[in-house]
Amino acid sequence: MDASKIDASKINAGDRALDGAEVGRLRQALDEQEQRSLRLLADFDNLRRRSAREQDAARRDGRRVALLPLLSVLDTLERALAVGSTDPAFYEGMAATHRQFMTALREAGAEPVDSVGQPFDPSIHEAVATSPSDSVEPGTVVRELRRGWRLGDELLRPAQVVVAAAPKARDPWR
Amino acid sequence: MDASKIDASKINAGDRALDGAEVGRLRQALDEQEQRSLRLLADFDNLRRRSAREQDAARRDGRRVALLPLLSVLDTLERALAVGSTDPAFYEGMAATHRQFMTALREAGAEPVDSVGQPFDPSIHEAVATSPSDSVEPGTVVRELRRGWRLGDELLRPAQVVVAAAPKARDPWR
Repeated sequence: MDASKIDASKINAGDRALDGAEVGRLRQALDEQEQRSLRLLADFDNLRRRSAREQDAARRDGRRVALLPLLSVLDTLERALAVGSTDPAFYEGMAATHRQFMTALREAGAEPVDSVGQPFDPSIHEAVATSPSDSVEPGTVVRELRRGWRLGDELLRPAQVVVAAAPKARDPWR
Repeated sequence: MDASKIDASKINAGDRALDGAEVGRLRQALDEQEQRSLRLLADFDNLRRRSAREQDAARRDGRRVALLPLLSVLDTLERALAVGSTDPAFYEGMAATHRQFMTALREAGAEPVDSVGQPFDPSIHEAVATSPSDSVEPGTVVRELRRGWRLGDELLRPAQVVVAAAPKARDPWR
């Protein structure tokens, strides 16, 4: 058989088979690429949402880091004011500083935690002592030793409190 | 012509042409999808980088928002301390509060701006007055009226300063 004589119909059939395989391969590759794009799009959306959340968290974290050490400064100022002074003019200057301090903390988004008279709440109160009482319900906060602060929905630091315990039962033998 | 008699070779040729067109179409679609994935991947990387930067910025912004109103509280405290008091014990309590305030601000990342004795720098100093001087170079900060503060590389607020001017020329007729 003459090698130069080619059976055209066979070549066509061969090409035909090749094209068919190529179509299959391409369809699969296209399908994979489409799936990949969809996953990337979903990842992208997730990242965008997470990024917005993380930005809010970072902003709050920045405020928290800045405010926490300053709360102790306010504590010191309040302890000194509680002692009082023999110099009324100077004392008034410090009382004004204190009022401005409270306002600045509120401007920064911090709010004092309610404690005295409230039911003890372990999510915002830290009980450092109990005290028997017959004037208030057991479990009520009767004294605040250190003010607690919130920052938005978060707790900056818990209030340190004394909680009412049930009054001691009277000794029936006395 | 009998409609039920089909010329198989023509159908094959037709299929062949269809497959060829399909391969072209699929190759183009695949190419577009690949381009799309690449763009998404690039967008994703950009978003991730931008998101990290924005998070840093948000954290700094949170600190800035918290600290700015508190700098005014420190100003008030310092003005009162500058006046002095006739009650040394109370005064010392307030001086301690002041020291703790400075430490807390530094803990929060804030640093005072250098001013007195430095060349006037409009990026960190705000000139509120000039004062003739023959003891220092003109353009030197000679007095600080309000302390300036930085937060990392950023300025929280400029220092308000008095800047040395050239001394007045002596009047030759006197």
